[in-house]
This record gives sequence, C-alpha cells and structure tokens, in this order.
Amino acid sequence: MGLTIGVDIGGTKIAAGVVDEGGSILDTCQVPTPPTPEGVIEAIADAVRAVGEGTSADAVGIGAAGYVDDKRATVLFAPNIRWRHETLKDKIEQRVGLSVVVENDANAAAWGEYRFGAGAGHDDVVCITLGTGLGGGIIIGGRLHRGRFGVAGEFGHLRVVPDGLLCGCGSQGCWEQYASGRALVRYARQRASATPENAGLLLGLGDGTPEGIDGRHVSDAARAGDPVAVDSFRELARWAGAGLADLASLFDPSAFIVGGGVSDEGDLVLEPIRKSFRRWLVGGRHRPHAQVLAAQLGGRAGLVGAADLARQG
Amino acid sequence: MGLTIGVDIGGTKIAAGVVDEGGSILDTCQVPTPPTPEGVIEAIADAVRAVGEGTSADAVGIGAAGYVDDKRATVLFAPNIRWRHETLKDKIEQRVGLSVVVENDANAAAWGEYRFGAGAGHDDVVCITLGTGLGGGIIIGGRLHRGRFGVAGEFGHLRVVPDGLLCGCGSQGCWEQYASGRALVRYARQRASATPENAGLLLGLGDGTPEGIDGRHVSDAARAGDPVAVDSFRELARWAGAGLADLASLFDPSAFIVGGGVSDEGDLVLEPIRKSFRRWLVGGRHRPHAQVLAAQLGGRAGLVGAADLARQG
Amino acid sequence: MGLTIGVDIGGTKIAAGVVDEGGSILDTCQVPTPPTPEGVIEAIADAVRAVGEGTSADAVGIGAAGYVDDKRATVLFAPNIRWRHETLKDKIEQRVGLSVVVENDANAAAWGEYRFGAGAGHDDVVCITLGTGLGGGIIIGGRLHRGRFGVAGEFGHLRVVPDGLLCGCGSQGCWEQYASGRALVRYARQRASATPENAGLLLGLGDGTPEGIDGRHVSDAARAGDPVAVDSFRELARWAGAGLADLASLFDPSAFIVGGGVSDEGDLVLEPIRKSFRRWLVGGRHRPHAQVLAAQLGGRAGLVGAADLARQG
Amino acid sequence: MGLTIGVDIGGTKIAAGVVDEGGSILDTCQVPTPPTPEGVIEAIADAVRAVGEGTSADAVGIGAAGYVDDKRATVLFAPNIRWRHETLKDKIEQRVGLSVVVENDANAAAWGEYRFGAGAGHDDVVCITLGTGLGGGIIIGGRLHRGRFGVAGEFGHLRVVPDGLLCGCGSQGCWEQYASGRALVRYARQRASATPENAGLLLGLGDGTPEGIDGRHVSDAARAGDPVAVDSFRELARWAGAGLADLASLFDPSAFIVGGGVSDEGDLVLEPIRKSFRRWLVGGRHRPHAQVLAAQLGGRAGLVGAADLARQG
Repeated sequence: MGLTIGVDIGGTKIAAGVVDEGGSILDTCQVPTPPTPEGVIEAIADAVRAVGEGTSADAVGIGAAGYVDDKRATVLFAPNIRWRHETLKDKIEQRVGLSVVVENDANAAAWGEYRFGAGAGHDDVVCITLGTGLGGGIIIGGRLHRGRFGVAGEFGHLRVVPDGLLCGCGSQGCWEQYASGRALVRYARQRASATPENAGLLLGLGDGTPEGIDGRHVSDAARAGDPVAVDSFRELARWAGAGLADLASLFDPSAFIVGGGVSDEGDLVLEPIRKSFRRWLVGGRHRPHAQVLAAQLGGRAGLVGAADLARQG
Repeated sequence: MGLTIGVDIGGTKIAAGVVDEGGSILDTCQVPTPPTPEGVIEAIADAVRAVGEGTSADAVGIGAAGYVDDKRATVLFAPNIRWRHETLKDKIEQRVGLSVVVENDANAAAWGEYRFGAGAGHDDVVCITLGTGLGGGIIIGGRLHRGRFGVAGEFGHLRVVPDGLLCGCGSQGCWEQYASGRALVRYARQRASATPENAGLLLGLGDGTPEGIDGRHVSDAARAGDPVAVDSFRELARWAGAGLADLASLFDPSAFIVGGGVSDEGDLVLEPIRKSFRRWLVGGRHRPHAQVLAAQLGGRAGLVGAADLARQG
Repeated sequence: MGLTIGVDIGGTKIAAGVVDEGGSILDTCQVPTPPTPEGVIEAIADAVRAVGEGTSADAVGIGAAGYVDDKRATVLFAPNIRWRHETLKDKIEQRVGLSVVVENDANAAAWGEYRFGAGAGHDDVVCITLGTGLGGGIIIGGRLHRGRFGVAGEFGHLRVVPDGLLCGCGSQGCWEQYASGRALVRYARQRASATPENAGLLLGLGDGTPEGIDGRHVSDAARAGDPVAVDSFRELARWAGAGLADLASLFDPSAFIVGGGVSDEGDLVLEPIRKSFRRWLVGGRHRPHAQVLAAQLGGRAGLVGAADLARQG
Repeated sequence: MGLTIGVDIGGTKIAAGVVDEGGSILDTCQVPTPPTPEGVIEAIADAVRAVGEGTSADAVGIGAAGYVDDKRATVLFAPNIRWRHETLKDKIEQRVGLSVVVENDANAAAWGEYRFGAGAGHDDVVCITLGTGLGGGIIIGGRLHRGRFGVAGEFGHLRVVPDGLLCGCGSQGCWEQYASGRALVRYARQRASATPENAGLLLGLGDGTPEGIDGRHVSDAARAGDPVAVDSFRELARWAGAGLADLASLFDPSAFIVGGGVSDEGDLVLEPIRKSFRRWLVGGRHRPHAQVLAAQLGGRAGLVGAADLARQG
C-alpha cells in the first residue's frame, strides 16, 4: 500500500523505480534512452511495466526536462528529445494502465529534496540543480509552485549578464552559462589556456591540452589544491551565490538547497557559494538569512520526487 | 459593516481612508509626514482616529516602505523613515484600539490591484511599481506571497548589471537603477547633455540645462514627440521588459501589472515594455505568454490594498 | 617607374595587383585560395609572378590576416590559414626575386584608405573594418602604428562586455562580437526569432526561418524599411559608435574611417554610428570632435595599401 | 645650462622645481593651491619665480589635469579648477618672462617615467597612473603621443562596463571607476559592510564603520594579510590587468608602467595585475608579452616630466 513509481529520463538511460511513502526506493529498472521521440515513450512504458509488475504501485510520476503544461499532462517543449506538445500522460496511461503525472525534472528533484532530503523542517524552499545546466524548483507553503502555465522555476535562464554568453535557449547571458557544470569546465579551460604554467596538475589529468579537461578533472584537481581548478570553482560559486541572493530578494525562502553533480563536491563548492551569497544579499544586515544547504539525495532526487508527486495526485 | 481603514505612508503626507468590501474609499484624511520616527507613529494614529471616528471600521492595514517581518507586526528596516525593528503594529493598536496589520507598501499596492484593479480574472499575478524606485508584489493562487521572513518581492534589487550602477541599498546594478522614474530622468539628462541639438523641446521645458529636467518634462516632451524623451522612455522600457521576462522565467504568472507614476503614461510606456518583454522572454515560442497590463487604481492602490489585507485578517 | 605589387589573401581567392604611385591598380590577377598552408605560399608566388611579369614592379606588399612580427617578415599566427611563425617574406622573396614586406591585412587596408581614400587631409587617423569580424589600423603623424611587436590595432578584441560573448580568440566580450557583419546577422536572427510577426519581409528574403537570414537579406530589408532589419543595424551602430568613442579617448585622431562590407550601406549605418559616437564621447562638450568618415576604396583598400607600404620600404 | 622648471598643480598645493638634464630636481618650492581659477594662475607664477630666481632655467613645463589643446597652450577643460579655454601658456609667459609649455599631468608623469624612471630601454611605453582616478600617457617611438587635438591617453574613461557605474565625466562604466584608489576604497567598504565578520582588522583601523575606511587602511590591512583588504586589492588588480590587456591589443607597447599612489604597494598590487593581464591578453600564446613595470619616480614624475618636455620645446 502507498507505493508509486517514479521515472527519470536521462540523456543515456531511463530509470524507473518503485518508491514507498517514506521516499525509499524498493526496486529499480534501467533501460537505454532510445534516439527517437517515439522510442522514448515506448521505453518509459517498458521500464514502468518491468519495475511495477507484481507490486501494488498504482500511480506513475515522470520527470522530464523542458516545459510541462499546467495540467501536468503535455510536454510543450523538450530541449533534448524532440518533443513538441507531446501528450505524454495520455500515451503512458494507455500503455501501462496506471494514472500518470508528468513534471518538469528539476521540479521533481526539488520536491524529492523537500520531502525526503535537505528540506526537512522548511516549508519555503528554493532548490537549484547545478548539473550540466542549471535547473530549479520552488516550494512555497509546502506546495510545489508550478506557475500559471506550468513553467515556473526556469532559473537557468535568468539573465545575469546583459549581452552575455549565448545560451541554447536563444537568449544571452543566462545564469546557467555562468553557474553550471558546463561553465565550470569552461572556466578551467580558459584559465589553463591563458596561464598553463599554473595548471600543470589540471592539464596532466586530461590529455595535456585545455580542451582535454573535463568536469571530473576540475574536481579532482581542486581537491588536490590546484590553483586553477580552485579558482574555477570560486568563479562558479561567485555567480551561483550572486544568483541565490537575487532569488532571496524575490522569493525569500527559509532555505536554499543546492544539488546536481557540481554540488557533490560539498563544502569545496558550497562554502564559496555561501560566501558569495552573503556578499551580494541585499539588505543583509536588516533581515533573516536563508540557509544554503547541500542536497542529500544525489541523483535519486528526481525519481523519488516524481513518485511522490504521483502519490499526491 | 465590513469597513476597514487603509493607511499609506508617503514621503510628504500620510493618508488614511475608510474602505468598503468592494474596494471603494468612503472617506479619507491626510496629515503631513512628520520628520521624526516617533512623530510618524503619532501621525498615523491621528489620521486613523480622524477618519475612523463614527464609522464601524474595525481593523487597520498600514502599508510601509521597507522590510516588514513575517508576523506583519514589525518594520525591520525602513529606507526613508529611520525605523529599525519598529513594533508598529503594537504601537498603533495601543493608540487606536483596533487590530492592525502592517504590510510592505508595494505588497499592499499589488494586493489592491489584484483585488479591485487590473487583476480581475487572474490568480497568479506579479505587479511592479515604477515610481521613484521599483517595487513589487506577488500573488500566487490568490494569496499574497510574503516569503518566509516577510521580505519577498523586492524586485527593485534584482541585479541586472554585474558591476553596474550603485544603488542606495549598497549593492550595484539593481533593476531599479535602470527601470524607474529616477532612471528615466537620468536617461533624459544624459542624452540631453550628449546631444543637446536633439533635445531642444526637453531642455526648454526645464531651465535650459540637463540638470533642470525632471520626470514631468520627460513625459510632456515624449507626448509631443521629442526624440530624446521618446528614446529615454524606450530605454526604460527595454530594461523593464527584460526584467519582466526574467520574472516570467521564475514565477510564470498569468499576468503582470505595471503601476507607479511612470505607468501613468499608458501605452507610451506600456507598448515598448510589452515589445521588450516579448523580445527577451525565454522559450517564447513554446509557452503561453503572460499579459502585461496597466494598473488601474493609480495612487490609491496601496491604501485600498492595505485596508483589504486588514479585512482578510 | 614606381610600380609595386600588392597582394590580398582572402578566404576564397588571392588577388595580386600592380599599383602605381597614385594608388591606381593597373592590372590584377586572381587565383583560388588553396586549402593547405604551403599551397597558399605557392599561390601567392604564382599570382605575383603572373601579374608582375613584364612590368617594372620591384617590390611586393602582402596583407595577411593575423599577427605579423615587427620586422614585417613572419606571420606569427594566422586565424584562418594554419600559419604559425611562418617566414612568409623569405619564402616569397626566394620564389619571386623581389623584395617583400608582409603586413597585417587590416593595417594594409587602413594605409590604403589613409593614402588614397577617405584619409585625405588627415595625418592622425583610426580605421575600423566592419567585415565578417572587426579589424583596425592606426595612422599617427602620417605613419602606420604597428606596435613594438607588430600587433597593434587589434581593435576587434577590445573587451566591451565583461563575461560577454565567446570569441574565436578564446576571450569573451570582444568588440567584434557586437560590431561586425556576423553580429549584424545574429541581431537580425534573434529579433526575427523573438518577434516573427515584425519580420515578415526579412524572413521572406531568406527561407522563412531565422537561420536562413544572411547579411545581404538584412541590408536589403533595412533599405526597404523593415523594422527588424533597421533595428539590427541600429544595434550594430550602437556598439560601433560606443567603441569609436573609446578609441577617441585613447588615440584622439582627427578622423575615423569606417570600412568593410557593412559600411557599404553608407549612411544607413554611418549615421547611427555617428549618433552613437556623439552619445558616448567622453567630454564631448569640451573637445574638438573627430570626423567619422566612410571608406572610399571598398575591397581594394588592402591590396592598394599593401602595394604602397612596399613602396615605402 | 640645460635647466628647466617643472610645475605640478595638485589639489592642495602647487609645486615648482628646477630640473637638470638628467631629471634630477635641484630645488623646489611649494605654495598652497588657491581656491579661485585666477588665484591658481598667480600662484603658479609666484612658485616659478621663487624657484627660478638666480638660476639659468629658461623654460617652464606645467602639468595640468584636464584637456590641454594641441598647441600645448590652452587648458580646454579642467575637472577640478574651473578653467574653460584658459590660455595658461600666455598668462604664465607674461608673468614670468620664460617660454612655457602646458601638458596634461598624466602625460607629463608618463614622460617623466619614460625618460628617467621605469621606461629605460623602451621606446614604446604605455603608462597608467592609479591615483584617486586613473590617468595615462602614451610614448610611441620615443615621442609623447598627444593626439590630434591634444587629448589622447584618457584611459580612465575607457568604457569597461556597459551601463556601469556613473563617472564624474557624465558617462558610465569608465575604467577609473573600477581601477583606482577610489575604487579600492569602495571595494573594501562594500566587503566590510557585507561581511563585517571577516573585516575586523580593516574596520578596526578606521572608526569601526565601513564608511570610516580609507585607502591607507586598506593598504595597511592588506600588508597584514586581512582577507577583505587583500580581496579588495585583487578586485582592483582584476580590472587593472584586464584593461592593460585591452591596451596591449590597441597599442602593443614593449612595456606598461604602473604608477600612482596605489602602485606604491609594489608587488602586493603589481603581481595580481600581471596575473590578470596574462589572463586576459588576447592571443597571448602567439605574441611577445609586454612587461608590466612599477613606476620609479613616485610623486615626482609629473614635475620632472613637465620640466623635460619644456626642454624638448
């Protein structure tokens, strides 16, 4: 009783899991992500059936990147899979015979952290996910804020630099171009290219060229104290913290939760983010400060959150 | 029955009014704003007593600039009056014998517009007030979003230009430095100074110098087609619309309401704001667009909204 | 007597021409640009021999994109051809038996305009070339300013937006990302994408999509009054003029000459550049203003300038 | 034989000195700076007469803040003294009976350093002076580059942040708002205000408030390792170095000389400037790098340079 299924659609694999009321994953199943939009739908259905068979799970929550409409039924636009006005809820319900809710993946992850992770004790929480890009989710008064049309919380596209870097969305200067895993790698490559004499360790982890540096190299080098890698994390944190200060002016939550792959580095990245947040928080001397917390569920947040949203109906 | 009193604290005068359930003001009273923090408290009490006497009004709502705590009782910080942790609710209740709620003035104005003005038919509304500065208020699901600590909706201090203009708040690049009445005057003065040959009308309305230009001159000259004045409004609108596009990414309301003195110019300023909003709205081809509406209550919004918030308790 | 040969190395063809002391081209020869670095050298030699045969031309000037050393002999770095420390002067001299000088192509074009084009009557001139990118050249006291190491006048890489657009040079926010033919097309595509309802003419000139718009379409549409195309030119001019104002603060020339393909549109682009220049010129009320002139030699400037620099020895 | 007189006009005092051909000051005289424009002229004449009496000095060089015309005779505009088209050369020549040249003060200081200070061995030098503001001077081929109208080298007003900080010149985002003594103090105050817990030493040197911090406090605290002070210097250096990288793209000198009060801190500020310069130098792997040198003459540079320019005639 009380079991639901959560689905997380990733670039390389689709994961489905049976989740109980306490947010524990009882069983999971993974399938590779097919290359076609139609294939993804079949694969989701396959994964749900495989993991749900023989269980009492009676609802499915799906976290999908992109815009999901306010009925939580249709994916209006997905940046990676070529879905446009895709009626995902209907198609999966027809295939698996269970009720389905579709949710933006960052919203699902935020909900997971709020319910079962770092959000304990907070009812007004803003989550950011520093992955390849930057996603977000908003909890207000214990409820997920989806917006009138379902597309709230697109933090990654807050314009933080007028006339700034091009973004995949077609705009310029979006926050995720400055605070994300992709940005971190760019910072490291730029610095290693400009001052290779300071980046020996970092360059050595890759193939000796700036282009050979990836995110893992930056993390490893930063933990070893490499100045270029540490400076790259600091630059990322400068932008992440300044953006959180903006969000505090707008939402005034009691806590921020920082998740995503970049946050796996823990205090290496969270401490400079907190410092930058304090630096830029407007009116900081005259107001209570929100806490800046590390996410606790890691990569499970989206699946667990989607499952729980399905339970809430 | 159902009458409440709203109070609006301005820089030069304090207005109190008796407001009915439909948002109509039945009676008002104004007193000059005293120069001392204590004086303001006595003046508020005087105005409330004067207007409330002999009526059935049984609650008072006060709109105050600055940070108001989450209990709607204490002004944590007021930028103009030197209130710091001022227990305004208690002090007014003691003096007038009615229950009091204190609210941020921009929140009160947003609530007024939502309830009795341009917000009709919308439950998710974001208001911005383009006055001397830039204030804001957020309605989500028909409720005023005050934030965990009461200080949400401080839109004016969203950082739109890193390392940008100094703001009175101590930070740099705040939105209100680029989209407000004060910004409008700066744009006009800068342009009149750089190219006086194009600003004959505008300079003539003042004393012939760029410094002599004020907000009314810019409005009058723009309506007469003066190119420098029109260009100044366009610059203001460019920043206002881009900021609304940011707020759409974050809040996803069904409508924006634009109020404050600058919006009195109507479509002269609203049309370019709408154009800029569409220009910068991320994902605009894949999502429903929020409407951008002109406020309808003018300077009464704050008083009416505060009175209604008192009624809601 | 007094004839020299100028060479212009383009992306698709290499042009050589015999030029007299008055800057007139007496004869020309074009060959396709070969794909390999070595091939380009042979092709230059071929073109020089072909055009020089039977003439009295006794010196060769070559304009090459990239960094040319202070001896005007070696190409340190070429962005398009993969030359690194290429001893171009020696190799061509060996092949054609004439003395050779190598010059940065934008410097050569600037010199051509200074000597035989718009520069008449000026001894302190700064030229910018708005082509695909943005190049420049500096004449001080009637002499080409090459810099201590030969790499002065790289205007295109002036940083005009901190944390701005990525540039091919590896830096961010370079002027040529905001003021060049490539920037113009980006402006038009972004605007046509955001507000297609205003870009009917522009979209119709291409294939109906923003991506189908090229530079010629923007020019044609702007001349026909298309608002998106006109606005795109205005945006380009805004950045171009502001940059010229910067150069005025630094170099204080008596004239700027604006060349390159974008400038072919004449006053359509030059008038807004002049307006923006006046808008941003620091201290404009207290100093003489440099003129902003259209280049006169079109695509011949580089060849003619290179030939004349060879004559000067 | 070969003696000339140099004059340095400061905000509080006017200094005149007799200087020999080697740049040594043989004798000096100081008078307070009078409050009126006319008074300053008389005071200059007095100081010149006092120091020149009984010597063989036969020419006077005056360094003045502001725009000096190309004839080195008239001050077109002085920001501090209210001179507008002031015929300074004529007025001083009439009063002292010696030939006079007037020069921009930063140009004079640059010339002093070039001739007798850090410029030894370089013929293409760009100097910046990090004082209260940011001034500059350019030496090309061993000659001072004054520009066609005499107002070249106004580096302080290079626009480094579009829509950035207001500048006294009326423009926005000028380099001197980010790299100067005044900027350094602002950085320190902002940081001390935002994170007073990290700024104990710095606040203690002043009166305990951010506003009480001055430039000397920042220097003292930085030398003692105070993190806020060190970070303030690093921020200044970040902007200074990025600007030098811009100047390298434009002028390509063999050396930069960094003078002014801020540079008195030596490697505390110069090393981070050099680091930032390398970080932002475009094409740094493909070109020789200019040196970044500390000025050597301190506050004498302007007086010595002005005297030497008078000698050159």
